[in-house]
Amino acid sequence: FGKLSDRVVDIARKIKKLGQDDPRRIIHSLKVGLAVSLVSLFYYFDPLYDGFGSSAMWAILTVVVVFEFSVGATLGRGLNRGLATFLAGALGFGAHHLAVLSGETVQPILLALFVFLLAASVTFIRFFPHMKARYDYGLLIFILTFCMISVSGYRDEEILEMAHKRVSTILIGGLTAVSVCILICPVWAGDGLHNSVATNIEKLGNFLEGFGNAYFKKLEDGDSTKADMQGYKSVLNSKQSEEAQTNFARWEPRHGRFRFRHPWKHYLKIGSLSRQCAYRIDALSGYLHSEIQGPMEIGSEMEEACMKMSLESGKALKELAASMRAMISPGSATPHITKSKLAANSLKSLLNINTAALMCQDTGSDLLDLIPAATVASLLVDVVYCTEKIDESI
Amino acid sequence: FGKLSDRVVDIARKIKKLGQDDPRRIIHSLKVGLAVSLVSLFYYFDPLYDGFGSSAMWAILTVVVVFEFSVGATLGRGLNRGLATFLAGALGFGAHHLAVLSGETVQPILLALFVFLLAASVTFIRFFPHMKARYDYGLLIFILTFCMISVSGYRDEEILEMAHKRVSTILIGGLTAVSVCILICPVWAGDGLHNSVATNIEKLGNFLEGFGNAYFKKLEDGDSTKADMQGYKSVLNSKQSEEAQTNFARWEPRHGRFRFRHPWKHYLKIGSLSRQCAYRIDALSGYLHSEIQGPMEIGSEMEEACMKMSLESGKALKELAASMRAMISPGSATPHITKSKLAANSLKSLLNINTAALMCQDTGSDLLDLIPAATVASLLVDVVYCTEKIDESI
Repeated sequence: FGKLSDRVVDIARKIKKLGQDDPRRIIHSLKVGLAVSLVSLFYYFDPLYDGFGSSAMWAILTVVVVFEFSVGATLGRGLNRGLATFLAGALGFGAHHLAVLSGETVQPILLALFVFLLAASVTFIRFFPHMKARYDYGLLIFILTFCMISVSGYRDEEILEMAHKRVSTILIGGLTAVSVCILICPVWAGDGLHNSVATNIEKLGNFLEGFGNAYFKKLEDGDSTKADMQGYKSVLNSKQSEEAQTNFARWEPRHGRFRFRHPWKHYLKIGSLSRQCAYRIDALSGYLHSEIQGPMEIGSEMEEACMKMSLESGKALKELAASMRAMISPGSATPHITKSKLAANSLKSLLNINTAALMCQDTGSDLLDLIPAATVASLLVDVVYCTEKIDESI
Repeated sequence: FGKLSDRVVDIARKIKKLGQDDPRRIIHSLKVGLAVSLVSLFYYFDPLYDGFGSSAMWAILTVVVVFEFSVGATLGRGLNRGLATFLAGALGFGAHHLAVLSGETVQPILLALFVFLLAASVTFIRFFPHMKARYDYGLLIFILTFCMISVSGYRDEEILEMAHKRVSTILIGGLTAVSVCILICPVWAGDGLHNSVATNIEKLGNFLEGFGNAYFKKLEDGDSTKADMQGYKSVLNSKQSEEAQTNFARWEPRHGRFRFRHPWKHYLKIGSLSRQCAYRIDALSGYLHSEIQGPMEIGSEMEEACMKMSLESGKALKELAASMRAMISPGSATPHITKSKLAANSLKSLLNINTAALMCQDTGSDLLDLIPAATVASLLVDVVYCTEKIDESI
C-alpha cells in the first residue's frame, strides 16, 4: 500500500511539473474541454437536431480532431479538413453518379475500381515532402470522404443530403474549435517559433560566455553555470520542431507584431546557422570534459585572446537574440563582433610569432589542447557574422 | 500551352523520381487502395449489411486512418484505436447511465461536465512525453468515443447496440488494414531502423575515408566523392526519425532476424553516438571549404599520420556498419581501430617532438589548419570505440 501511495505522489509531482513547465498546457486542456462541451450542448439545445441526425457526432469528431495546441496548427487542420471534405464530396458524388449510370452489374466493380484508384494515387501524393508538410491531413480526409460518399451513398441514395450535412457539421465543429482556440489565450505558432529561435541563439551565447572561464578553470563549476553550459544541447536537434512550427505559422493570420506574410522561412535559415554553430560548440564541449586536458601553461596573451573571443562572441550572440526578440535591427551586437574578430586576428598573429618561441621550450601537448578552442572560436565568429546578416534582412 | 506541358513533364519526372527512390512507396499506395476496396466490397456483398447500417463507414474510416507505411505504425494505431474505443465506450456508457439516473434537468449539465472533465484531463495526459510517443492516437480516440457515446446516446437510447456496432466495425476495418499491411510486402519499422542506423555509420565512414585525400588535395574532387562527403549531413538530424521508428518497432511482432523483444533502445544509443561523431565531422568539413586553407607544407610524417587516422577510422566505421547489418559481433573492425589509435598516438608524439623544430622555421598558420583535423580525428577514435562497445552488446 505504501508503494502505491508513493507511485501516486510520484505521478502527482510529474503532473505538477508538467503544468509548471508550461502553464499553457493546462489552459489548452481546459480549452479543449470547453470546445467539446460547447458543441455537445449546441446539439442538445438545437431545435434543428433532427435535421442533423447522427451527423451531430461528426461535429464532435471535428472538434476533437482539429483542436491543436497552436492557432496555426488548428487553422491548418480545420482548413484542410473543410476543403478536403468539400472537394472529395463533390468528386465522390460524381463517381457515384457515373457508377449508377453504368448499370447494376458493373456498378460495384466500377465503384471498387474508383475507390482503389483514388486511394492509391492520393496515398502516393502524400509522400511528396512538400505536400506532406502542409496538406497531409487534408489528403487523408480526401480519401476518407471520397470512399464514404461513394460507398455509403451506394445504398441509401441520399448522397447530396449526406454531403450537405457533413459539410455543415464540419463547418460548425471547425468554427467552434478555431474560435475557442483564437479567442481564449491563443498560442501562436509564429510567436513560438520566434521565441525558440531567439532562445536557441541565447543558449549558444550562454555557453560561449561561460566557456572561457570553464576551460581555463578560472571559476569553480557552480551548478548554475553547468546548466548554462548544457543548454546548447537542445539546439542540436531543433530542426524538425522548427520546421513544423514554420508550417503552422504560415497558416496564421496577422497577429501581434507579425504581419500576415511574415518571412517565416528566414527563421529556418537562422535556425540552420545556429545549429551549425551548435555543432562546433558540441565539439568544443568535448574538450571541456576530456581527459586530455592537462594543466594549462600557455602564454597569458594567448589565453587572454581565447577568453576574449569566446566571451565577446557569446555576448554578440546574446545581443542578437535580444534584438531579435525586440525586432529591432541588431546594431548593438556589432561592437562585440568586432571585438571578437580582433581577438581572433590577434590570436592568429600570436600563433605565428609567439608560438615559435613558445614551442622551442617544448610545450607541444598544451598547444594540442589550445588550438582547437581557438580555431572553433574563429569559426564561431564567422557564424555570428552570418547570423547578423540574416537577422538584418528580417 | 508550352509552359503547361513543361509543368506536366516536370511533375511526371518528380513522380517517377519519388517512386524510384523508394519503390516501397508505390507498393504501399497500392496496398492502401486494395484494403479500402476490400472493405467496400465486403460491405457490398455482406448479407449482414443491414445489421451494421451506416456504421459500415466506420470500417472504411478505420482502414484509411489506421493504414500506415510500416507494420509497427499500423499495428500501433490499430491497437490504440481498438483499445481506446472499447474502454471509452464502456466509460461513456457508464457516464450516460449515471446522467440518466440523475433526472432530466440535471442530465445535460452533468453530461457536459463529464465531457468537459474527461476531454480536459485526457488532453493534458497527451502532453506527457512518454504517453505522446506511444499512445497519442489512442488518447485522441478515447476522447472522441467517450464524447460521441455519451452525447449521441443521449437521444436514441441505443448506446449498447451502437457501441457494439462501432467496436465490431473497427475490428473488421483494423483487421483488414493490419492483414493487408503484413501479408503483402510488409515494411517493418525495425528493419528500417536497423538499416538506417547502419547506413548512418557507413556514411560517417565514407566521409572519413574521403576526408584525408580531400583535405590534403591528393585527388581531384570527382562528383562521386563529393556526394560521399555530403552524405553525413543527413545523420545530423536523424534523431526524431530514429525515435519514431523505435516506437513503431516496439509494436512489431517477431519477424525476420528480430525477436519480439529486440533491444530497440540500443539503437537510440548507437544513433546518438553517431550523431555526436557527425557533429565533429561537420566541424571538420568546415575546414575543407574554408578560405583559410592555404597550401599545405607540413611535415610528411604528420600528414601521413592524419591521413591514416581518418582512413582507418573510416574503415573501422564501415566495418562496424557491415557487421551490424549482418548482425555478427564486430571483430573485423578491431584492427582498424587499433591502427587509427596508433596513428593518433604517433601524431601526438610527433607534435611534441617534431613541431618544436618545425615551428622554429615559422609555419604557424599551417599548424592552425592542421591541428583541428588531428584533434577531431582523435575524438573520432573515441567515438568509434564507444560505438564498438555498444555494438557488442546487441
